[in-house]
Amino acid sequence: MKYPETLNNLIDCFKHLPGIGEKTAERLALSLLDADDSMINLFSTSLANVKQKVKRCSKCHSYSEKELCEICENEDRNKNIICVVETPKDVVSLEKIGSYKGLYHVLDGLISPMTGKNPEDLNINSLLDRVKKENIKEIIFVLTPNIEGETTSLYITKKINNDNIIISKIAHGVPLGANMDYVDSLTLEMALENRTRISNS
Amino acid sequence: MKYPETLNNLIDCFKHLPGIGEKTAERLALSLLDADDSMINLFSTSLANVKQKVKRCSKCHSYSEKELCEICENEDRNKNIICVVETPKDVVSLEKIGSYKGLYHVLDGLISPMTGKNPEDLNINSLLDRVKKENIKEIIFVLTPNIEGETTSLYITKKINNDNIIISKIAHGVPLGANMDYVDSLTLEMALENRTRISNS
Repeated sequence: MKYPETLNNLIDCFKHLPGIGEKTAERLALSLLDADDSMINLFSTSLANVKQKVKRCSKCHSYSEKELCEICENEDRNKNIICVVETPKDVVSLEKIGSYKGLYHVLDGLISPMTGKNPEDLNINSLLDRVKKENIKEIIFVLTPNIEGETTSLYITKKINNDNIIISKIAHGVPLGANMDYVDSLTLEMALENRTRISNS
Repeated sequence: MKYPETLNNLIDCFKHLPGIGEKTAERLALSLLDADDSMINLFSTSLANVKQKVKRCSKCHSYSEKELCEICENEDRNKNIICVVETPKDVVSLEKIGSYKGLYHVLDGLISPMTGKNPEDLNINSLLDRVKKENIKEIIFVLTPNIEGETTSLYITKKINNDNIIISKIAHGVPLGANMDYVDSLTLEMALENRTRISNS
């Protein structure tokens, strides 16, 4: 490679990002030579600070720049419901819908003995603690619909072992707008099983 | 969006890069939270310095951190040949082959009256200057094979107007390994016209 050193370093850094190959890294780095100075400044300072500044909320383990995240601190949220998710990214996906007004709890993965992820590697104990200490009435699991997801929700349900708490998981079925030709048979079977009644007025 | 501010800024910066959409920007920014500190440091300093440090070579207009680029400074290069290219990226593509040992000249675009690019907007005068002052014996055009590329090479050839200098352009034809079904008819016509003789020993 015959690019000057700084440019070469920049290309190398881009190449370390997931899904970015050599050609794309080159294109991205070169595009920055024509970028605004203000954008470059913001980019480089955000980059330098992101690991120090962005921590996890001490309560729900979601991303936060303070001890508690905005959602945990917000007095308007329903403090009786916890939505259990896999990653902090899932919190943002759910917040984008805007209709859920409860709290969250980020597990940071799923139970998966195959890959060596045991219950103690996840934020399960802190969830059980919250269920005991806070006034939780409902728990909703929003986890990947596979064996690991099912195992994790069953394990936590057993551990909570409290009939006064409503525990549910999101519906699995045919996604809206999907072409029926491409829906796999397992999803279709589940969609049939969980059919909902159309009321006849 | 409910990400902390620093993370949000980082996502926004990634979104400004060419070909990076919202989902990819999110994925790239989040991946940096798990990256090495040394990589983050290198990334942010390269980013901060790239516009100040990476300049153009005063002779060939290729990228360089010094007044003259490595190629122009290299005493081992053949100083009698200039390869005329469109962008500094093309210099790197040609250097990767490793077989060309001459000099370069970056035009920074092609003549294109449609988009308002006139000869005086390109590095053509500095090329004509080099041809007059340096001992140039050969010029090779490596430009995009379209109307703009042809116009640019013809315009420069006319301007040089010196029968002692060999002026050529790269061969256009069927790329190696190409499936003949997908070669367009214009390329095929040109490949036929520029056929090369297989010697019968």
